[in-house]
Amino acid sequence: MATSQTKFIPLRNIRIEDRFWSEYVRLVREVVVPYQWRALNDEVPEAEPSHAVHNFKIAAGQLSGNFEGMVFQDSDVAKWLEAAAYLLETKPDPELESLADGMIDIIALAQQPDGYLNTYFTIKEPGQRWTNLAECHELYCAGHMIEAAVAYDRATGKRKLLDIVCRFADHIDSVFGPEPEKLKGYDGHQEIELALVKLYRATGEERYLKLSEFFLNQRGTRPHFYEQEWEKRGGTVHFKELRMSHDYPYSQAHLPVREQQTAEGHSVRAVYMLTGMADVAALTGDTRLLEACKTLWGNIVSRRMYITGAIGSQSYGESFTSDYDLPGDTVYAETCASIGLIFFAHRMLSIEPKSEYADVMERALYNTVVSGMSQDGKHFFYVNPLEVNPGAVHNNAIYHHIKTQRQGWFGCACCPPNIARLLASLGSYIYTFRDRTVYTQLYIGGHAEWELDGSSITLEQQSDYAWEGKVQFRITAAKPTAFTMALRVPDWTDSVSITLNGMPYAAFIGDNGYIEINRVWSTNDRIELEFGMPIHRMKGHPLVRHTAGRIALQRGPFVYCLEEADNGASLHQLYIPRDSELQAQSSKDLLGGVHVITTEAVRGDTSDAWQDGALYRKDAEWRPTPVTATFIPYYAWANRGEGEMTVWVKELL
Amino acid sequence: MATSQTKFIPLRNIRIEDRFWSEYVRLVREVVVPYQWRALNDEVPEAEPSHAVHNFKIAAGQLSGNFEGMVFQDSDVAKWLEAAAYLLETKPDPELESLADGMIDIIALAQQPDGYLNTYFTIKEPGQRWTNLAECHELYCAGHMIEAAVAYDRATGKRKLLDIVCRFADHIDSVFGPEPEKLKGYDGHQEIELALVKLYRATGEERYLKLSEFFLNQRGTRPHFYEQEWEKRGGTVHFKELRMSHDYPYSQAHLPVREQQTAEGHSVRAVYMLTGMADVAALTGDTRLLEACKTLWGNIVSRRMYITGAIGSQSYGESFTSDYDLPGDTVYAETCASIGLIFFAHRMLSIEPKSEYADVMERALYNTVVSGMSQDGKHFFYVNPLEVNPGAVHNNAIYHHIKTQRQGWFGCACCPPNIARLLASLGSYIYTFRDRTVYTQLYIGGHAEWELDGSSITLEQQSDYAWEGKVQFRITAAKPTAFTMALRVPDWTDSVSITLNGMPYAAFIGDNGYIEINRVWSTNDRIELEFGMPIHRMKGHPLVRHTAGRIALQRGPFVYCLEEADNGASLHQLYIPRDSELQAQSSKDLLGGVHVITTEAVRGDTSDAWQDGALYRKDAEWRPTPVTATFIPYYAWANRGEGEMTVWVKELL
Repeated sequence: MATSQTKFIPLRNIRIEDRFWSEYVRLVREVVVPYQWRALNDEVPEAEPSHAVHNFKIAAGQLSGNFEGMVFQDSDVAKWLEAAAYLLETKPDPELESLADGMIDIIALAQQPDGYLNTYFTIKEPGQRWTNLAECHELYCAGHMIEAAVAYDRATGKRKLLDIVCRFADHIDSVFGPEPEKLKGYDGHQEIELALVKLYRATGEERYLKLSEFFLNQRGTRPHFYEQEWEKRGGTVHFKELRMSHDYPYSQAHLPVREQQTAEGHSVRAVYMLTGMADVAALTGDTRLLEACKTLWGNIVSRRMYITGAIGSQSYGESFTSDYDLPGDTVYAETCASIGLIFFAHRMLSIEPKSEYADVMERALYNTVVSGMSQDGKHFFYVNPLEVNPGAVHNNAIYHHIKTQRQGWFGCACCPPNIARLLASLGSYIYTFRDRTVYTQLYIGGHAEWELDGSSITLEQQSDYAWEGKVQFRITAAKPTAFTMALRVPDWTDSVSITLNGMPYAAFIGDNGYIEINRVWSTNDRIELEFGMPIHRMKGHPLVRHTAGRIALQRGPFVYCLEEADNGASLHQLYIPRDSELQAQSSKDLLGGVHVITTEAVRGDTSDAWQDGALYRKDAEWRPTPVTATFIPYYAWANRGEGEMTVWVKELL
Repeated sequence: MATSQTKFIPLRNIRIEDRFWSEYVRLVREVVVPYQWRALNDEVPEAEPSHAVHNFKIAAGQLSGNFEGMVFQDSDVAKWLEAAAYLLETKPDPELESLADGMIDIIALAQQPDGYLNTYFTIKEPGQRWTNLAECHELYCAGHMIEAAVAYDRATGKRKLLDIVCRFADHIDSVFGPEPEKLKGYDGHQEIELALVKLYRATGEERYLKLSEFFLNQRGTRPHFYEQEWEKRGGTVHFKELRMSHDYPYSQAHLPVREQQTAEGHSVRAVYMLTGMADVAALTGDTRLLEACKTLWGNIVSRRMYITGAIGSQSYGESFTSDYDLPGDTVYAETCASIGLIFFAHRMLSIEPKSEYADVMERALYNTVVSGMSQDGKHFFYVNPLEVNPGAVHNNAIYHHIKTQRQGWFGCACCPPNIARLLASLGSYIYTFRDRTVYTQLYIGGHAEWELDGSSITLEQQSDYAWEGKVQFRITAAKPTAFTMALRVPDWTDSVSITLNGMPYAAFIGDNGYIEINRVWSTNDRIELEFGMPIHRMKGHPLVRHTAGRIALQRGPFVYCLEEADNGASLHQLYIPRDSELQAQSSKDLLGGVHVITTEAVRGDTSDAWQDGALYRKDAEWRPTPVTATFIPYYAWANRGEGEMTVWVKELL
């Protein structure tokens, strides 16, 4: 293991001011987090009640009543607190802080004398703690509360929630572990692993790191813990429609984690696990664990990921299927799974700065994650299909999980608060540093500062990266300081031009995908970057059935799609000629300001022969009609009423 | 209503001797029906036990024990008896007749004193008769027993089973009807309607026809009978995973039958209902009922039918979806549904001789029905997909209902006995007559005879229709007799040449799709027919997403497919150039003797650019490799081990 780790510039030192992202950050602060607080308090009349805060109040003894909602409902409160913490870290907000403090007071009262904290088991099954790890998400909820506590402590300096979760973690440590009298289990939904690493980093308490490692080591071992606990509790089942206790791959418990070669099962669980594995590998130098991370990363990104950075090819089990099985219409592509993939990429970047990780992070962020939230911040996609035909969606049950429009809130509301906490902490994904090198992983405009040789260095990034490929950096250094600026060259560009203080700079792209500029930097030093932004006709691997004979357009970080609103219905009739010219044009009034791509195309199979209504013909000639096809960025689809959409379009070969 | 109805030549007067079909008829007689008898008696070790005969023995008081199997298990015995009857009608078989007689003796003992007959309710829920028509198939099972009884009486002259079902039908008539004290219900699975018409025809008892009409009239009326009975029995449900009592379209109970415009719900139920509707319309002259038949026929064949004559686009509810939604890989395409479509077409032909009905009958028969059974007669497809990728089928739950290989038997064993009874009675689908015209609806070789003007006329058909398009008729008439031979011109031919006694005959194709030869026929008169057999590049309607940009090959009645065994894996990489030459060749040793079609093709996307394992590329050129594509008839797929298959293949435009 390398002795010097890559670290991220802390969130508190970053402020986002970006043409594309500022609006999303504002939405999270002004709309999403306040809206979600109301949703968690069952105050949004048009959404299903959450019951999440209500459950905590019952567990705290403030209200009487029954637990309602999913067994993991507590985690929505935790994710909201975590998002609130990130907002408070970057900008004071006394009103929000007071709401969060109030919530933490309730949580404190809900904690049991021995440190245990979970409203479902406290209210509904008090004698059944830790009897159904496969299904009941106790450690998952614990993990989210730990993440919230670490963030809140860092943001506000208030330790109350951190103390709560330390007591809880100590309790967990007393229940689970290698000692003979302790349980050898691990949670059905990974999350505690990465959370305990955060708690270790926040507190320096090694037991938390060891406990995380223990949970990773236990997973998939034989005899199988889930079978044992299932038998012990008499074969009762919480989620009757699934076989969580027996379907080992569902929770990546089919093999010990270091032996897994392919990404299997529930895709969110998989990437949360991988995030924890990378965290532990980074801290312990466990090379077999790191190799497993790399193997599974490779399997995901080279065989099981959609071009939008989405993962999870099927609704059943919200899970991976098999290599190269990437249907665009029946896909699951959960927003949370792409968020988890970003976490995983982020941790891999902390181990080794390789632009490939940041490329995938960018792909998931600019496409699936942004697609997951409407431009009013109040509507969300849980599932992000790459191809939609509303008539079929409403009438064919293979599409039962597909929504053609973003929804207000969900009974299982994992995605909206997950988007909120990711976007609220987006600043922390932009830069990493290692030794004396600052890596720009994402080109998102704003202000960042850090210390080097006891001196403060400030970086102002002005970015019109997403639409124009242009970025400017301006450095402020308390004193001239030697360090390296490493600038990621994104996978989609075909050229980079750089000027340093106005003078052309001869750039060399390193093996790891970054251009490194090593010098003594002084205040007012300036770098200007311009990435070539060709429109790419992307193709899928020859073994992918669903992309064969089709192309997807990509310009910059954005994958594009055709919508019925621009192109009429029956998008399956459109073909893009192999040599057609593709033109990008800024359209400021459309969808909050996007670049559209237009091209000559043909609409096939419209010959008169079909007028008699026959379903199959032996004499149908190919008489295509010339049309113009108009593409919009994928993330912006489904904002103009219900209609067809497709990312992959037939190519006229 | 026309005063003169089209009638079919009775089965007893037809003997099949045909290059293609004789083997299937032999299989049914020598393998399928004996095998199914063993399966019904739980004597096939490698198949799930049926329990069907066992249930009857318990109800008859011969054994003790509990009812096992599906609520409609009785119908498998009935369908077997019906198939046995058809075999006995065309050829004596004392051993088979003795088995059938023995079974009928048991059935007689299982009948209750009031005429009621159903082993599930007799054994398991004796107090609950007629309380759950939506789900429990009582009238459905009754209908199948009636069909068996009518066939057995006709075949053997033994009335015992006919008497049993008449007593049962009388009992049903005492329970259901328009009188105030009677139930206003109708079965969740249509079948009784067409069966009562058969019973009416066999007995002349008009009450049976009226009862059939009553059931049709009640369906879909408000207040809704299924809701009423559901409330009355306290909301209990038999099939918990479905919503049969509330999902009205599932059993075509969403609208009165005469008001239905589109084919909805469970596809077998739909075509069984339509068969009954056509039967009643033919006998009563109900023009609104006939119009509904035509409307729904039109909706099925011009918007909801696969090119293989399969119906039912989704597994959920084994049902239709919406117009032009015809996915080939997730399709249901139940063998029973195509058999029901043949029944429906058959009844429409009895109302009006139009070749369109026979064309669809032929399409379903030569493709989906024959695909449903293996060439050893012991393995069956319930679901008949048009596209299969085994790797995806085994790993993606949207394919949970797809089998890549024919199976031995099914817990819900509707299809195998349904194939058996259809093939055992295939002779009755060949000819119809109306007034003095004999229509050849199917070109299947063999011997047929009928009476005209008190004289016996015999028709010998020698057919090499399926593979060569050649048919010869030889007439024997006790005395010279004037009548019309009407010869169907199939929808797939582009030319017909006819000779009459060796001399060219100038054929004229009538509006209804038949060539009529009207003369005084004498013994040794001879017609020779030769249909042009071009290989067609079939295309799907422009609104079908799943066939866009693709072709399917058809030669004669056979739709073709590509299999991995002939073409290697990754069939999605193959493209057929628009002008490629298609060649058919007889291959006697392949798959029991078929014509294969070969053509020049290309395999796309195999360029070296993909060697690095990237999943998406911006620089993948189109570098196709020339290959030869080999097509086999669809019905013969999955006889050479597991592999990919596709009917629709990309066209290089």
